[in-house]
Amino acid sequence: MGLIRKAVSQLKDYVPGKTPSDPKAIKLASNENPFGPSPKAIDALKKAADRSQVYPDQQARSLREELAKAFGLTADSIVIGNGSDEIMLMITTAFLSADEEAVICQNSFSLYEFVTRLLDGRPVFVPLKNNRQDLAAVAAAITAKTKLIFLTNPHNPTGTYLPVTELAAFLSKVPKEIIVVIDEAYAEFASSADFPKSVELLKLFANVIVLRTFSKYYGLAGLRVGYALARPEIIAPLLKTKLPFNVNRPAQAAAEAALGDKRFLEKTLKNNGEGKNQLYSAFDSLGLEYIKTEANFIFVNIKKPATAFCQEMMSRGVSIRPLTSFGFPEAIRVSIGTKDQNNRFIALLKALL
Amino acid sequence: MGLIRKAVSQLKDYVPGKTPSDPKAIKLASNENPFGPSPKAIDALKKAADRSQVYPDQQARSLREELAKAFGLTADSIVIGNGSDEIMLMITTAFLSADEEAVICQNSFSLYEFVTRLLDGRPVFVPLKNNRQDLAAVAAAITAKTKLIFLTNPHNPTGTYLPVTELAAFLSKVPKEIIVVIDEAYAEFASSADFPKSVELLKLFANVIVLRTFSKYYGLAGLRVGYALARPEIIAPLLKTKLPFNVNRPAQAAAEAALGDKRFLEKTLKNNGEGKNQLYSAFDSLGLEYIKTEANFIFVNIKKPATAFCQEMMSRGVSIRPLTSFGFPEAIRVSIGTKDQNNRFIALLKALL
Repeated sequence: MGLIRKAVSQLKDYVPGKTPSDPKAIKLASNENPFGPSPKAIDALKKAADRSQVYPDQQARSLREELAKAFGLTADSIVIGNGSDEIMLMITTAFLSADEEAVICQNSFSLYEFVTRLLDGRPVFVPLKNNRQDLAAVAAAITAKTKLIFLTNPHNPTGTYLPVTELAAFLSKVPKEIIVVIDEAYAEFASSADFPKSVELLKLFANVIVLRTFSKYYGLAGLRVGYALARPEIIAPLLKTKLPFNVNRPAQAAAEAALGDKRFLEKTLKNNGEGKNQLYSAFDSLGLEYIKTEANFIFVNIKKPATAFCQEMMSRGVSIRPLTSFGFPEAIRVSIGTKDQNNRFIALLKALL
Repeated sequence: MGLIRKAVSQLKDYVPGKTPSDPKAIKLASNENPFGPSPKAIDALKKAADRSQVYPDQQARSLREELAKAFGLTADSIVIGNGSDEIMLMITTAFLSADEEAVICQNSFSLYEFVTRLLDGRPVFVPLKNNRQDLAAVAAAITAKTKLIFLTNPHNPTGTYLPVTELAAFLSKVPKEIIVVIDEAYAEFASSADFPKSVELLKLFANVIVLRTFSKYYGLAGLRVGYALARPEIIAPLLKTKLPFNVNRPAQAAAEAALGDKRFLEKTLKNNGEGKNQLYSAFDSLGLEYIKTEANFIFVNIKKPATAFCQEMMSRGVSIRPLTSFGFPEAIRVSIGTKDQNNRFIALLKALL
């Protein structure tokens, strides 16, 4: 159809993790919280429901102020999005002019390319090295046309991470006119001592945007609340590009309540640590190659076509993610579930491999 | 800041209707449903809340199928947005290339200009004529660069409407390569026999997109659910530009339930008809100029600075909308409320005029 913008006709379709329709099936495909949503969040959601006829607060002031307190920042250092996906689009909309370049690591989250192309930008892909983001190669890919760099920490889908010294050394080399987006969707799960502290990075580097989400750690993927932390002069243009009422009203209330649900968050982290070891042991005993993770999922090399394998798993009640669309046709990504969910996954894996 | 895209630095800030912080105050500023949200919608929202850790259905299949049934269309004729605002952005993203023109009636909803500028398009403004959209002037504004035309029916903020014969005659003159967006956010309130039936327009004209919303009639402004009806070949590129998980999961369930809440909808329409007459009588007895409305709000010419007047009303507990940002500095827009709300507004209006 000749009507369509050229950039749009080149877009690839997004490939989501599959949600099973069978209620007895389990979903370990989208890195959702295996305990469900934070109970405090759900109470707040239900309480807010009765005022759903009222438009949401355009500025999401209350949630931004709570986040500001939590990070020791001011509210004008924060923008809330309809998921961090929307903030990625705000970023290219605010900063990326036609034909400017965005450097993106290969085999990463597909939205970085998507939002770049939507704005007529040019994605410049840099290969991973040993399943890690190769910062030397990213630096070498910078040209006079580079406007954005997208990094993920920890990296999805490999689970590897960029330690603070390596990341800071890289950032100090990046020209100030280039914005570096660090997507920290899984940062709350990172347990290594040298995992970077976002707020410290923002203090040192004026051109950094940190993306966070309520979808994973807080268990609110269905509510679509993400946020970005950056200097106020970076946040201001993002606020300018945002649609006025972009975040659902009860979702704002739920996210704010989730922030304070310490018990749920502790339980989530404890389970993730234990589940990680449970799955590592199983993979070891099966002789499977996998990558140590800083996130709530594990990359496993199954050395056979992953799409067909995951369809077979799905038909037996376990949804996991084939990494074909990420460029790893023989690897899977399994979300760390509860002990029982992990056991069910392991048993099925043994039966089918 | 030199980093920002040129289009973004030219954007105007959105001016929302004010939500009073005082719980005893009433809000007649944003055309929200005075009965609150549809009770069936709220039940569905609460029921869906417990599964908020799961990503929403990317395709919103269930809601689209219900809407398809309601309109006698197929689901591929429908796209769901995070409010119809988001669909407006999908439309410019899918169709409007840099420097192409969008024809927009002056004194209308500000988002049409906003989404046009975000995509580097050029808004071409056409004045209203006797407070009505002037279709002859719109047709005359078409050039070789025109890609989009934005109409609103009924019109916000005047409440006037385009009758079916006038609109159809206009559409039959518009070249097929130009997409005509008809924003029907308030169409459910229209009571005139010659108000167009959207589905009939779609049958006759392949280049029409009809926008609808759950924010007004269904009372779900806080949940952000809008939709568009168009031919499948127009909907397909919109689906391509949309962020994967753009509509909150419980909100999808709530919208679907609201569709079937016949009792709530009848009550809403009955109240709107009665409230309209109640307000007309009051304005008549006060000798105020107003415009007969097809929507759930009334445009009133108060012949004094509206911003200051509305601030004064607000400080006495009634929030209404000054139309200064719409280009009518001496007019207000009042949403039709319940009988009691209307009485409170009328009493205060009498006291302050």
